[in-house]
Amino acid sequence: MSRRADVVVIGAGISGLTAARRLIQSGVSSVLVLEANDRVGGRTFDLHVADGVVTEGGGEWVGPGQDRVLGLINELGLATFKTYVDGKSVYLRNGNRQTYTGTIPPLGPDALADFVQLQTRLEEMAATVPAEAPWAASDAPTWDGMTFGGWLDANSVSAEAKWLFTLGFTIIFGEDPHETSFLRALHAIGSSGGIEHMFNTTGGSQESRIVGGSQLISLRMAEQLGERVMLGSPVTEISQESGGVTVKSARAKVRCRQVIVAMAPADAERIRFTPGLPVRRAALQRKWRNGTENKLFAVYDKPFWRDEGFSGQALTDLPTTPYVSDNSPPDGSIGILVTFMGTAGSGDGLKWSDALLDDPAARRAAFLDDLTKLFGPKAANPAHYLEKSWVDEPWIQGCVSTRAPGTLTRYTNAAREPVGRIHWAGTETGIYYEGYMEAAVSAGERAANEVSDAL
Amino acid sequence: MSRRADVVVIGAGISGLTAARRLIQSGVSSVLVLEANDRVGGRTFDLHVADGVVTEGGGEWVGPGQDRVLGLINELGLATFKTYVDGKSVYLRNGNRQTYTGTIPPLGPDALADFVQLQTRLEEMAATVPAEAPWAASDAPTWDGMTFGGWLDANSVSAEAKWLFTLGFTIIFGEDPHETSFLRALHAIGSSGGIEHMFNTTGGSQESRIVGGSQLISLRMAEQLGERVMLGSPVTEISQESGGVTVKSARAKVRCRQVIVAMAPADAERIRFTPGLPVRRAALQRKWRNGTENKLFAVYDKPFWRDEGFSGQALTDLPTTPYVSDNSPPDGSIGILVTFMGTAGSGDGLKWSDALLDDPAARRAAFLDDLTKLFGPKAANPAHYLEKSWVDEPWIQGCVSTRAPGTLTRYTNAAREPVGRIHWAGTETGIYYEGYMEAAVSAGERAANEVSDAL
Repeated sequence: MSRRADVVVIGAGISGLTAARRLIQSGVSSVLVLEANDRVGGRTFDLHVADGVVTEGGGEWVGPGQDRVLGLINELGLATFKTYVDGKSVYLRNGNRQTYTGTIPPLGPDALADFVQLQTRLEEMAATVPAEAPWAASDAPTWDGMTFGGWLDANSVSAEAKWLFTLGFTIIFGEDPHETSFLRALHAIGSSGGIEHMFNTTGGSQESRIVGGSQLISLRMAEQLGERVMLGSPVTEISQESGGVTVKSARAKVRCRQVIVAMAPADAERIRFTPGLPVRRAALQRKWRNGTENKLFAVYDKPFWRDEGFSGQALTDLPTTPYVSDNSPPDGSIGILVTFMGTAGSGDGLKWSDALLDDPAARRAAFLDDLTKLFGPKAANPAHYLEKSWVDEPWIQGCVSTRAPGTLTRYTNAAREPVGRIHWAGTETGIYYEGYMEAAVSAGERAANEVSDAL
Repeated sequence: MSRRADVVVIGAGISGLTAARRLIQSGVSSVLVLEANDRVGGRTFDLHVADGVVTEGGGEWVGPGQDRVLGLINELGLATFKTYVDGKSVYLRNGNRQTYTGTIPPLGPDALADFVQLQTRLEEMAATVPAEAPWAASDAPTWDGMTFGGWLDANSVSAEAKWLFTLGFTIIFGEDPHETSFLRALHAIGSSGGIEHMFNTTGGSQESRIVGGSQLISLRMAEQLGERVMLGSPVTEISQESGGVTVKSARAKVRCRQVIVAMAPADAERIRFTPGLPVRRAALQRKWRNGTENKLFAVYDKPFWRDEGFSGQALTDLPTTPYVSDNSPPDGSIGILVTFMGTAGSGDGLKWSDALLDDPAARRAAFLDDLTKLFGPKAANPAHYLEKSWVDEPWIQGCVSTRAPGTLTRYTNAAREPVGRIHWAGTETGIYYEGYMEAAVSAGERAANEVSDAL
């Protein structure tokens, strides 16, 4: 099928769909979105739990300061609701189970003091990292040449404080901080509202969820875009010629004027570009990798923990439940607990053994065992058990955005800098809240503006 | 085309072809090699220079201790010759051009002392890292959680010594040491003959080249394998069923008993595996990155520098010539100088500006300008100029093998551990000299043995 369009958008995640929709709103009517997958939503994907009930297998939380995504949610007629946090949360470390309320877990006094000094120093350093150009920070070469985990090793006094930092950032980055560039960690802290904001539910980035599931953001936009969205259409080639671009996919060959690639950089590697991409961009795509986190869900007839005064939140060093959160639907008609699964059997982060990684039955049993330790015997018998892996998605390299050492300073703005008629979107190209839905939206809007200006 | 075979080998680089050939030598006659590219050789690829003269665009050097590849070369009736090193080499730093002979560049006394202390400490630590299981070293979690560059920053006293280490390892790993796991660096040092061996030509890993070019190793093997090698046949699916495996490629669907995947882990990510790979292997493939180095060649009618007493070797901080070597054919009938191009505009490693990276004419001019500073005005007018990029190969992710922090300890032996009827080859799965042709050969032989045992 040979077609023409003013703009082709590649990728029907939040970022690509936002870009397409903003273009249409600005008067560009001829927009075509090509999506490799047979669904929209990218790294937001809701799992069916029961009639009218979903739970979010991918990105799910929004919080104050995330104005672009909150604005979009409102514009699409969607609603948010507060993540359930009422009652006691569980803090369990070295076999010592404690409960607490509010946002601060019951660290020992030494650990708390150390946590505060680490937080203070990290935020002071983060304040020197420009959100739009972290590679320009005066200490960028040093910070990008070391890992966040290495810095924590060298600068933490309390094993407990270090453990809590490691746990929190492993969940946020989808990888152990020993894999993450220290510069990227500081950049994230500085451009995502600070450490408390990143860690917290109430007042922070996990404050709210979307009624009906986060994939609704994409589903609604796709509905509005109608036939402009073509699923099952992986793009294989983008050729820039004088006066235009030809985009080839499995289902269509489209001649257009401008292109928006709304994919994680590593995923764009599947496309052959003619002429070849600038070396810095080409190398970035080959060096890029995303986090490898997955989610596990235990579904109960009721959120029984609520009746017993528990929030469903937990921070633990148990094998499968580093961080647990209540992921029930807004009306609490069904109870859902979620945890995050790392992908490795060693390291300071999420310690999943090979047996747990590769044996779903063992994994389910271990997860329920841990939940029982946290919330009592009722946790042992869920109505359903669900998983969402981001390591076996065919068209998506991984979950959240991260950065290995060296990537920021060596490839600087290559994730975002247009290449002729090609513009880049995706949460990896956002400036604030990179890796969150917020950056997916702002990046889509920025790419749409670039294209509007260029048309 | 539907076929049957006892064994399918995926990838016709040195490792895959070695595996196929060893299998046939052991009596397994039904072997099929599927190669995505339209050529064999993988990361060895010779560029045509003149009638009967090539220069190596990819891996080229072999040295003492690399017994498997030297044995194979001999077995294939190929010959080696010594890399040209006679005469003076050039050492140029901060505008100060010096010449020297032998293997030790004329560092200042402080730099030399620092180089020696760094080398001694690195080799002491490297001695504690088991070649076959670096993740089992007692300090593995710490070392894998930091970068080699970070260690150099913290432990070098002399800027000159640190610069020389950075330069040498950037060439060897194809990336700045600030991107490389310190554990991987120690593992490489311990399993590749030590630092002097890695750095040196005479007596070291750059000692010899193959007459006619290193791709001949693969070409000869492919010739012997004949119709068993199918080019232009990228594999898209590997399905393990009871009693066998089905391998689907663009040109063939093959039912077989065992499979050898002889690709870099990141490249195997293009294949869909059924059932899905173990999580640790799947995550490793998504996290893996290879180096992004390229090569530039200036070709002269004669190796004029030899007549003037120069070896053609240079170590410099000039923009395009960190390391220069004489890459002429064995008879010296034509003169060829080679340099290595990094892929980034910042960092302590190879400092290539965007202009040089993306403008071939500017790159050529800068390279010749630097060569002129090193070897005089005759260098300014080559007969030809050639380049080989490993960043735009369609089927190969990059050049040499490397490791970001965290990869070794989190994924341990996943690069090498068989998955049912799937066995893994490629230099990344070798134990000694990983990243070199030596490990490609030993890994191919090990995979062939695994398959022989399993048949």
